[in-house]
Amino acid sequence: MHGPDSTHDPALRSWVESANVPGCDFPIQNLPFGRFRTHGSEPWRIGVAIGDQILDLKLASELCPWPARVSVWLEPLAAGDLNTFMALGTRPRRAMRAALSAALADRSDQGPFLELCLVPQAQAQMSLPCQISNYTDFFTGVHHATTVGKLFRPDNPLLPNYRWVPIAYHGRASSVVVSGTHIRRPNGQYKPQEQDEPIFGPTRRLDYELELGVLVGTGNALGMAKTMAQAEEDWFGMVLLNDWSARDVQSWEYQPLGPFLAKSFASTVSPWVVTREALEPFRQPFVRADGEPAPLPYLDADDNRERGAIDVQLEVQLQSRAMRERGQEPVRLSQSNFRDAYWTVAQMLAHHTVNGCNLQAGDLLGTGTLSGPQPEQGGSLLELSAGGWHPVILPGGETRSFLLDGDRVILRAWCERRGARRIGFGECAGLVEPALPWPPLL
Amino acid sequence: MHGPDSTHDPALRSWVESANVPGCDFPIQNLPFGRFRTHGSEPWRIGVAIGDQILDLKLASELCPWPARVSVWLEPLAAGDLNTFMALGTRPRRAMRAALSAALADRSDQGPFLELCLVPQAQAQMSLPCQISNYTDFFTGVHHATTVGKLFRPDNPLLPNYRWVPIAYHGRASSVVVSGTHIRRPNGQYKPQEQDEPIFGPTRRLDYELELGVLVGTGNALGMAKTMAQAEEDWFGMVLLNDWSARDVQSWEYQPLGPFLAKSFASTVSPWVVTREALEPFRQPFVRADGEPAPLPYLDADDNRERGAIDVQLEVQLQSRAMRERGQEPVRLSQSNFRDAYWTVAQMLAHHTVNGCNLQAGDLLGTGTLSGPQPEQGGSLLELSAGGWHPVILPGGETRSFLLDGDRVILRAWCERRGARRIGFGECAGLVEPALPWPPLL
Repeated sequence: MHGPDSTHDPALRSWVESANVPGCDFPIQNLPFGRFRTHGSEPWRIGVAIGDQILDLKLASELCPWPARVSVWLEPLAAGDLNTFMALGTRPRRAMRAALSAALADRSDQGPFLELCLVPQAQAQMSLPCQISNYTDFFTGVHHATTVGKLFRPDNPLLPNYRWVPIAYHGRASSVVVSGTHIRRPNGQYKPQEQDEPIFGPTRRLDYELELGVLVGTGNALGMAKTMAQAEEDWFGMVLLNDWSARDVQSWEYQPLGPFLAKSFASTVSPWVVTREALEPFRQPFVRADGEPAPLPYLDADDNRERGAIDVQLEVQLQSRAMRERGQEPVRLSQSNFRDAYWTVAQMLAHHTVNGCNLQAGDLLGTGTLSGPQPEQGGSLLELSAGGWHPVILPGGETRSFLLDGDRVILRAWCERRGARRIGFGECAGLVEPALPWPPLL
Repeated sequence: MHGPDSTHDPALRSWVESANVPGCDFPIQNLPFGRFRTHGSEPWRIGVAIGDQILDLKLASELCPWPARVSVWLEPLAAGDLNTFMALGTRPRRAMRAALSAALADRSDQGPFLELCLVPQAQAQMSLPCQISNYTDFFTGVHHATTVGKLFRPDNPLLPNYRWVPIAYHGRASSVVVSGTHIRRPNGQYKPQEQDEPIFGPTRRLDYELELGVLVGTGNALGMAKTMAQAEEDWFGMVLLNDWSARDVQSWEYQPLGPFLAKSFASTVSPWVVTREALEPFRQPFVRADGEPAPLPYLDADDNRERGAIDVQLEVQLQSRAMRERGQEPVRLSQSNFRDAYWTVAQMLAHHTVNGCNLQAGDLLGTGTLSGPQPEQGGSLLELSAGGWHPVILPGGETRSFLLDGDRVILRAWCERRGARRIGFGECAGLVEPALPWPPLL
């Protein structure tokens, strides 16, 4: 059931030629879902990324013959409603994937119809991929937790609960935005160390956080926990997530109820949802280091130990205004891998529901900042600049302790291994705009 | 503009006789909005509570003549969509209140039509009053913060940020339920003090929290902060809120990102939204004690100092299973007043948006536990039982450190002062059910 199926065959090619270019994020083995439009006044439509094109599923449902069963499942997609499709569960998603893969494969009978349903990605505007009603952010990046903990508690970087509880907080769902949305530097309250009283103004410590976001497929009724097996079945796919953070606001406000305004001004996700099925070939054993405690039974399962980890490579790039003006490409700040996380996706879902909390289709669960084990693998500037003390040097000589106005941050992720076709997540980008004056100008 | 208007005249009587009974929660001076139905298969309809009746606004819009302008504003209400009406702002809400007050007043011409639109509350099932897309819980109860802080830090109960920042955390919106919904005791992970490792099971320290919930009226666009004046204009009304808490889970999980599963299993609100207009006669000056710092300018306004506080009396009652079986009425556990909160409603909204976070119509902002200054005024069992060490004694001799299965918790609130008609919030009740076994039975 979980083995490679024909949709993962690395030799499979598409009649959409751009999908066959080596290094392409969206070969026929990926087939992520997103919402797009080509004119500002249109309703959002659901499409599947293939090469540098989008297959418009509304047009495809109208112009192309499909097997009867698949037609039923195409209905919500054709109506622009990804959430309903997400809630259907694994079987419809697998069947749809097989049907799309067959239709987009070289020499498909459906090719002549579907050619009429392609929209160049360059001509499309993207939206959030679905209605995100709830956003939870976890803290699975143990290297991030350790490095940041060291800044506050050099002798005891990891709190005692970390190895037992998949720590998380509820984030703000209304301010989740899609890649490309400009990010306004937030105003806020913070207390410089040398002062007795807090001050108010634009944050001086604006940061990014390199994360993946899990989108929930099938939810659960209030009061009904998911087992690990259900949790593994019930997630739909993944996006990139930049959990922008105002570090000065965060350190002043976070005791005792956790981060609030330091995070809720914006969180950016990538527009294409890479499905659980597309990630199958990149699953790996989930192994805890010697000396780490075994998870409590509600967070443990054979399947999770055998294939709970996912080998997703991650990268942060930055392009300053000066670099843009000089025509310089973005520079890579760091790289890491989701494989190094302390908790798996199934553990996140199972933990979230164990108290009866009801997850809903389209809920976003962030992994938390995914830093690697080496100091240069920090998934935030807070880590890379050691709390602001050792600024990062950019090409051209600029330095960054934290983000400046005009900086563009780009997250990327991809999966590759021998014997599988490389797939990518596209990009998750945002440009920092200057703060608005306070009080607001009328 | 903010003075008493004719809808507050304490002598005003309704042709709905039950509304004129002294002590009634819903006299003609109140007119709260709610969503109800009389059969399980019907769509939810919006109504206004009057005495022991509900005025069905769908029927009322069809059967009764209304001024043209009011008819337009009745449309979303007649369609069952309170959120759209909430977003319209103050002027439509005041006009609707004046029209409803005139129509329900003694000797109204509309009486004969509206008599056909009354549904007894006893025959109605209530729902959440609106779509609650986001839930934020503040920490404005300074006596709660101090008492709970003392349990952890006897010498330094209030953290240094408390007097400057309206502390809050994002709550879980999907598990907000309406009064009457049974509350399943959650399972979870916690570490008994005498053990080295955490255990898993039903919480042993289930608690309630006595709160008010503010419902947002007009929202704000992402990036655009509300001034204090806008914040004061832009809230719609209030409900009672019970922020059920699992204290053992909370103390084990909350570092460093705040409460998560300890709260997200359920939060109960009362079904009737008491509007800002109904609360007008109970506004009071907002005065900080000597020695307390002045709020930063973004949290300060003349209007807020002059009338930012609201005199809302609050009460918690408990009825155990044994009391129910003996036919004993619920016993009062404590009383407090929202007037004693450290931050006002306008300060909560202004703070929430100052970083650009976008509030939406129907968002729920909890006040945090509202305890009074005296030890017997704790708004939670954690406080009343001093961390579980001094159990509360119930009539009949039972004791409670925390809630037991079968306990029914009822929150009540009301406003009264000389020269105004008393108004009430109705009740916010929930019965504790035993935990489900884990792993779940199939």
